Amino acid sequence: MSDSKKISYEVIKRLPRYYRYLGDLRKNNIVRISSKELSEKMNVTASQIRQDLNCFGGSGQKGYGYNVESLYKSICEILGLERGHKTVIIGAGNLGKALVLYKSFERRGFILTGVFDNDEAKIGTFIGEHVILNINTLPDFIAKHKPDIGIIAVPKEKAGEIALLLSQNGVKGLVNFSYTDLSMLKDVEVENVHISDSLMTLSYRIKDK
Amino acid sequence: MSDSKKISYEVIKRLPRYYRYLGDLRKNNIVRISSKELSEKMNVTASQIRQDLNCFGGSGQKGYGYNVESLYKSICEILGLERGHKTVIIGAGNLGKALVLYKSFERRGFILTGVFDNDEAKIGTFIGEHVILNINTLPDFIAKHKPDIGIIAVPKEKAGEIALLLSQNGVKGLVNFSYTDLSMLKDVEVENVHISDSLMTLSYRIKDK
Repeated sequence: MSDSKKISYEVIKRLPRYYRYLGDLRKNNIVRISSKELSEKMNVTASQIRQDLNCFGGSGQKGYGYNVESLYKSICEILGLERGHKTVIIGAGNLGKALVLYKSFERRGFILTGVFDNDEAKIGTFIGEHVILNINTLPDFIAKHKPDIGIIAVPKEKAGEIALLLSQNGVKGLVNFSYTDLSMLKDVEVENVHISDSLMTLSYRIKDK
Repeated sequence: MSDSKKISYEVIKRLPRYYRYLGDLRKNNIVRISSKELSEKMNVTASQIRQDLNCFGGSGQKGYGYNVESLYKSICEILGLERGHKTVIIGAGNLGKALVLYKSFERRGFILTGVFDNDEAKIGTFIGEHVILNINTLPDFIAKHKPDIGIIAVPKEKAGEIALLLSQNGVKGLVNFSYTDLSMLKDVEVENVHISDSLMTLSYRIKDK
């Protein structure tokens, strides 16, 4: 998929949403959809949709619209979802626990292979079907199972150290839930999910309401 | 703060990060900082920082830099954090539970006033110090306590209905963790936290690594 090189990050960030919508249509056995219908469903303009999807050759046919299955598959391929990803979750606190039990990941091709913590009281106990492993065994685990994504749900103070440990052992991407920035790391891609930041932005948006 | 009207949403989205950094500096009794130092700490260019902070009159003085306390307070005011916000969490599943127990919210001025669910088995039980309330009592609760932010952590199928209930009863802003879009709602501001979307974007970013 050499075409994907040209797609801007702004478009890429919108693709998961298209992917979800198309997934719903697919589940409901809808075979084709016009950019107008898709635009009404998604509450974005039809021209935005056409522009976005044209970026990777997902052009609709006049009078037919988009073929749901083929568009769904294209986006899946562009996002690199078709090969599946192995993940590890570091931190078995409340958030880590919620993430382990979160079912949506597997549906998107993200397979949880291990959960780690440094708390002796937690190690060896279970969250759902997953036993909590000792953080000291993480390097061996990575060498053996080759997860490519690490999900960081440890306290802020520990996040940098854990991120370094993951990236030095070959994990390629991190989802960072810890309330700190990991932008100093060079050999790993980081997506931040800073929940309080969303609350603060929302605070601004409702200020004059 | 009439100045804040002019600030673009892109800048606003970066303010929570400045706010967090300045908060750390403040905690460490650092009184002033140059854009160069701040830029190194935050891993963005000094010119970006100057541009962003100039947007709301937060200009540094030559040879002095920025006064940490006054910049911190300006950002706090722009984001509307100084007045505090009352929140409710809807959904006491795993994610809801983690959010109830998440300590960072209160530190930023977001006070959790109520937790709601529709599950008879959960209603009346506690998460930390918070008793789970019956979702049917939500309208009365809102009328009495006037929360302005609702945090939605219910299954996808229920999210639209809950969002409508919150906004119709006067809640001004929603943080939506449910894996669905609420963009059709007109009278309420919505910040989405779609965790799987972050994973999908990350999947793209590590594709060629």
